Amino acid sequence: MITYPKGFLAAGVRAGIKETGEDLALIYSETPASAAGVFTTNAVKAAPVLLSAARVPSAGVQAVVANSGNANACTGEQGMLDAGEMAARAAALLDLDPEGVLVASTGVIGRAMPMDLVRAGISAAANSLSRDGAAAARAIMTTDLRPKEAQAEVGNARIGGIAKGSGMICPNVATMLAFITTDAGLSPEALQKCLAASANVSFNCLTVDGDTSTNDTVLALANGQAGEVPLDDFQAALDAVCISLAKQVAADGEGATKMVEVEVRGAASFANARKIALTIANSPLVKTALFGNDPNWGRVLAAAGRAGVAFDPARVSLRFGGVPVLAQGEPLPFDEKAASESLRGPEVCIMLELGEGPSSAKVWTCDFSYDYVKINAEYHT
Amino acid sequence: MITYPKGFLAAGVRAGIKETGEDLALIYSETPASAAGVFTTNAVKAAPVLLSAARVPSAGVQAVVANSGNANACTGEQGMLDAGEMAARAAALLDLDPEGVLVASTGVIGRAMPMDLVRAGISAAANSLSRDGAAAARAIMTTDLRPKEAQAEVGNARIGGIAKGSGMICPNVATMLAFITTDAGLSPEALQKCLAASANVSFNCLTVDGDTSTNDTVLALANGQAGEVPLDDFQAALDAVCISLAKQVAADGEGATKMVEVEVRGAASFANARKIALTIANSPLVKTALFGNDPNWGRVLAAAGRAGVAFDPARVSLRFGGVPVLAQGEPLPFDEKAASESLRGPEVCIMLELGEGPSSAKVWTCDFSYDYVKINAEYHT
Repeated sequence: MITYPKGFLAAGVRAGIKETGEDLALIYSETPASAAGVFTTNAVKAAPVLLSAARVPSAGVQAVVANSGNANACTGEQGMLDAGEMAARAAALLDLDPEGVLVASTGVIGRAMPMDLVRAGISAAANSLSRDGAAAARAIMTTDLRPKEAQAEVGNARIGGIAKGSGMICPNVATMLAFITTDAGLSPEALQKCLAASANVSFNCLTVDGDTSTNDTVLALANGQAGEVPLDDFQAALDAVCISLAKQVAADGEGATKMVEVEVRGAASFANARKIALTIANSPLVKTALFGNDPNWGRVLAAAGRAGVAFDPARVSLRFGGVPVLAQGEPLPFDEKAASESLRGPEVCIMLELGEGPSSAKVWTCDFSYDYVKINAEYHT
Repeated sequence: MITYPKGFLAAGVRAGIKETGEDLALIYSETPASAAGVFTTNAVKAAPVLLSAARVPSAGVQAVVANSGNANACTGEQGMLDAGEMAARAAALLDLDPEGVLVASTGVIGRAMPMDLVRAGISAAANSLSRDGAAAARAIMTTDLRPKEAQAEVGNARIGGIAKGSGMICPNVATMLAFITTDAGLSPEALQKCLAASANVSFNCLTVDGDTSTNDTVLALANGQAGEVPLDDFQAALDAVCISLAKQVAADGEGATKMVEVEVRGAASFANARKIALTIANSPLVKTALFGNDPNWGRVLAAAGRAGVAFDPARVSLRFGGVPVLAQGEPLPFDEKAASESLRGPEVCIMLELGEGPSSAKVWTCDFSYDYVKINAEYHT
């Protein structure tokens, strides 16, 4: 729940930007908060990404306005004006400086924002702020089936988070939108450092389809109302919240029938381990095999081999859905029927041991089903 | 036709390695030929790739034995022994040195080669060599729907080529198997140079699913029976044969309903242009939109932006299926119904103009349909 920490209010309303449901969220801190953010690395950045990235880290942020249904990306100069107006309108209604408001958008790319609807939506949201954060979590959904919420405690302080993401999901940053609130007291710089570290082991270890969005945005607000907490404890709690949200995004990937954890061990570095794990997690052949409960483990090896990280195939071992299928480069006999059974169920693990070094990484993804094709062939028109 | 040049014979027989149809091909030059090859860059290389790569370039090759239905990849030490035995058996039957035979395999990864079937198949193929190459083109197919053949003339000399490839198709080298014959006279070194150059603008500009295989192999044999030809002319003819085969592989990608050409112009280098074009061509979101005849052009921009090549979004223009949708970074009004219509039909073009430099690249791919998921969820078990 985004309103779990002290001093945060939220609202989610229907502005009419997308076809059904809430599509405009407002998150508000009663007192000025430290703000931090991590954003897409895509060369094509949406207008709200450019706006928000220029405003963090900062000590004086009190609100985030976010919409689904329109990404405000590839919208030229008008898009920048529209993002600025969204912040300015929320600021006016909440009696804040415009620089105290951050903006995020998700939805179709390349369409002008329907500003009449957006203006009315921001007004409605400002009038319905409350301690109930559920509507805000729903209002950032696009093709998501479930809202994603997570929370944690650290000393007397609390952390709350919401995320959306279902397609166009790939690291740097992975989820299209995630918002974190906390009543812990941190400087903007400390919050930025913690958020970047948490994103590195959570959202940046998440992929649905390898398509890094133009809009990926993770924002954190810390209003200090619960006082300071040990930084290491805060980092651990923030990691837990971000990893929980990342796994929820993977499990609710477009068309997903199961969540898949890919673990690579025995790599020379975390970066190498994650690169191989993400290549496996993005392979359409691996993902369709998982959908079919097909223990076609050769596809895992083939994906690992094209990740751009050197390793000796003769030292590699693999467990696929818990079943050992390869040891030190030699294939093992296994019961195909039992192996197929081990791939059923809501969570499947793939574990690749390289024998090259001490580092490991886990990434989260989902399988690739008919519904992914259906959702994405029919989304726009 | 692989037997189009003088002095080449071929056979394709059913050995019983895959469920139905021919699955073992033999290509034979009546006289010793210069041989060249380009192979997968995957760190996990199949046994026949390791064997053939060690034998080219060479002046004394006379045969290629290839099978479908089993990739002989991730098969440990036994796999290397089996690949060696395949070459040795063909050599014995054709009265050649074992080093004069190259080997290629395609199919399921991680299963021991059924050598009893393979041995009998090689014998049958050696006994049925003829000037008809059609069966050899069929015998290297896996999930392909159509055999892929191409040919060209250069002076008095001829070039013939066959390819297979339907899934696990991505550059470096793209197609799993392609074989080229010519009666032009070239040294092994000249042939290797020409083949590498042709592969760079054909097979390395081809992707079906981004999954670079463990088995990708392109081999060329030049027996010189038609004498020497100008090298530039040979290169142009070889380019044409390889590009034709690459486009045929794209059009017959697993589950494909259309062939897609992605052209990137105005890049600083060919490498940059190709990198962006391949990222667009590999995007599941772009490919599913094409399947749905959905002019969702923002996905093309989002894919281009994550390719790892810097560019200024404000200078970019885009034509999607022939319809201008973006000019100098500003979205253009367009008729969505007409744009959707322009995406129907067997061939679709996407053209992105970066405005960054003088270089361009074309790559070929296909759309992403329900049938891709079906084929790959049900291929193995």
